Amino acid sequence: MSILVVGSVAFDTVQTPAGRAEEVLGGSASYFSVAASFFAPVHLVAVVGSDFTPDHASIFQERGVDTRGLARAPGKTFRWSGVYGEDINQRTTLATELNVFQEFRPDLPEWLKKIDFVFLANIDPDLQRSVLRQMKRPRLVACDTMNFWITGKSEAVRETLREVDVLLINDEEARQLSGERNTVRAARKILGWGPSSLVVKRGEYGAALYSNRSHFAVPAYPLTDPVDPTGAGDSFAGGFVGHLARTGRLDDGNIRQALVAGSVMASFCVEDFSLRRFGKLRPEEIRMRQKEFSRMTAFEELP
Amino acid sequence: MSILVVGSVAFDTVQTPAGRAEEVLGGSASYFSVAASFFAPVHLVAVVGSDFTPDHASIFQERGVDTRGLARAPGKTFRWSGVYGEDINQRTTLATELNVFQEFRPDLPEWLKKIDFVFLANIDPDLQRSVLRQMKRPRLVACDTMNFWITGKSEAVRETLREVDVLLINDEEARQLSGERNTVRAARKILGWGPSSLVVKRGEYGAALYSNRSHFAVPAYPLTDPVDPTGAGDSFAGGFVGHLARTGRLDDGNIRQALVAGSVMASFCVEDFSLRRFGKLRPEEIRMRQKEFSRMTAFEELP
Repeated sequence: MSILVVGSVAFDTVQTPAGRAEEVLGGSASYFSVAASFFAPVHLVAVVGSDFTPDHASIFQERGVDTRGLARAPGKTFRWSGVYGEDINQRTTLATELNVFQEFRPDLPEWLKKIDFVFLANIDPDLQRSVLRQMKRPRLVACDTMNFWITGKSEAVRETLREVDVLLINDEEARQLSGERNTVRAARKILGWGPSSLVVKRGEYGAALYSNRSHFAVPAYPLTDPVDPTGAGDSFAGGFVGHLARTGRLDDGNIRQALVAGSVMASFCVEDFSLRRFGKLRPEEIRMRQKEFSRMTAFEELP
Repeated sequence: MSILVVGSVAFDTVQTPAGRAEEVLGGSASYFSVAASFFAPVHLVAVVGSDFTPDHASIFQERGVDTRGLARAPGKTFRWSGVYGEDINQRTTLATELNVFQEFRPDLPEWLKKIDFVFLANIDPDLQRSVLRQMKRPRLVACDTMNFWITGKSEAVRETLREVDVLLINDEEARQLSGERNTVRAARKILGWGPSSLVVKRGEYGAALYSNRSHFAVPAYPLTDPVDPTGAGDSFAGGFVGHLARTGRLDDGNIRQALVAGSVMASFCVEDFSLRRFGKLRPEEIRMRQKEFSRMTAFEELP
């Protein structure tokens, strides 16, 4: 089954202990769609400016991502720049220029309204809901958000959550959104607002799944040479939703596997700047790393 | 097989978001020995002052911990006090009074020199080595250390590591000890100094095992009402060494299970102040929580 993602396409300028990349392809929808494309067909809805060239879009073409929904507006493409500390898990945003993204109002063409799997990347929660109002009964709606919306539009975030099956956020966002310091309590509160599953991303510590059915946790893949963590969360979401769309099953066992697939894709993302690692990633490498996750977490039940 | 632990017995005064406890039993050897006592016979070597009463020792008696090696010195027992932030993972030490612990020079009685499993809790690395020099070929030596020794006596710490099989420390200590910001690189460097296994404790994120044979990670048990994290690391070590001593096997599969046993004991520790939770803990509860860890981490290998 195929996937619709609505989010941002951006040019990022990033400095990490491993080096620097200027005006490289980024944005939540870019990372998500390319990561998910290894699992299922992906349709991308976003907006770019007149400075966006066919060259920039080549990774989407190579990965077979449908970009007919990538609108072009007069002006400049969304730009973000940030710097990572000596501890690569510490990030500081230097600049955010929304540019054409500021006026982004996703208007779905007819052929995208019946897609079964939807990922609402980190955009205004009101826009997220406007996308859902255009859709015809998707089988699964997953979404992301961030502290900016949690602080500025918390009511809108909660309204969106009523219509969402899976929320994927990080630890700090889960605590902020719920007002609970304890992550387990935070998760329970958020599950009470609508989603049947909450995936808490913990960066180098992996990810945890909270649902009414079970609790599950998976570690992160241990990388010796992380290059750039930008987009890891969206790549995680791409692997996660990608696995669910590929298999078409939404049972607890399959959602657990989706967390592993997400962790695998996030780990590849971090191995290079921008989407470069995905440009040369082979399906066989994904399979091998998925197997490594099994070896890394397996133990015999204690008597 | 039985276990020898050498470390501290202390009176702790602790303030957490859940409440306050004054002059309660604490210290690395106390937590370790009581946690380990659920798995194997434990012999405790430590020192207390003249203010230490039989009442204070009652938990050791109840748990069958051999306290014949608990020396009594004129003066006051080691005291520590600390406060935990609204985020219970943030700790500030308010006061440390070494008292009789300052002059602690562990002198092993003959009957303790042939114990097979040794845990050197967080004490001066020179004292840790002096204990090993008195031992007769233990089967497994595990040890802990802390930033105080890593900063002040890094050479001595590394000398001790040459004689140690398993080092159990936290993330930050692993990075500090190795001088590497990346935990995987930190682990490799430390393994090069002697230990065949490194267990990195990650608090609410669980623990990871690094060895030349494999990499393994286990999440922490999700607690909604953590009361007091003091002693969680030593309780983890107690479950870890306890499981190895009970089974007598040191293969990779058994070491993985030991990490689970350690995580289980750490989770119980945090549920109350001091050693109170262990005072009423039933073996059946340990078995149940061990099984929950299997459920919490299980997934079918991806195709």
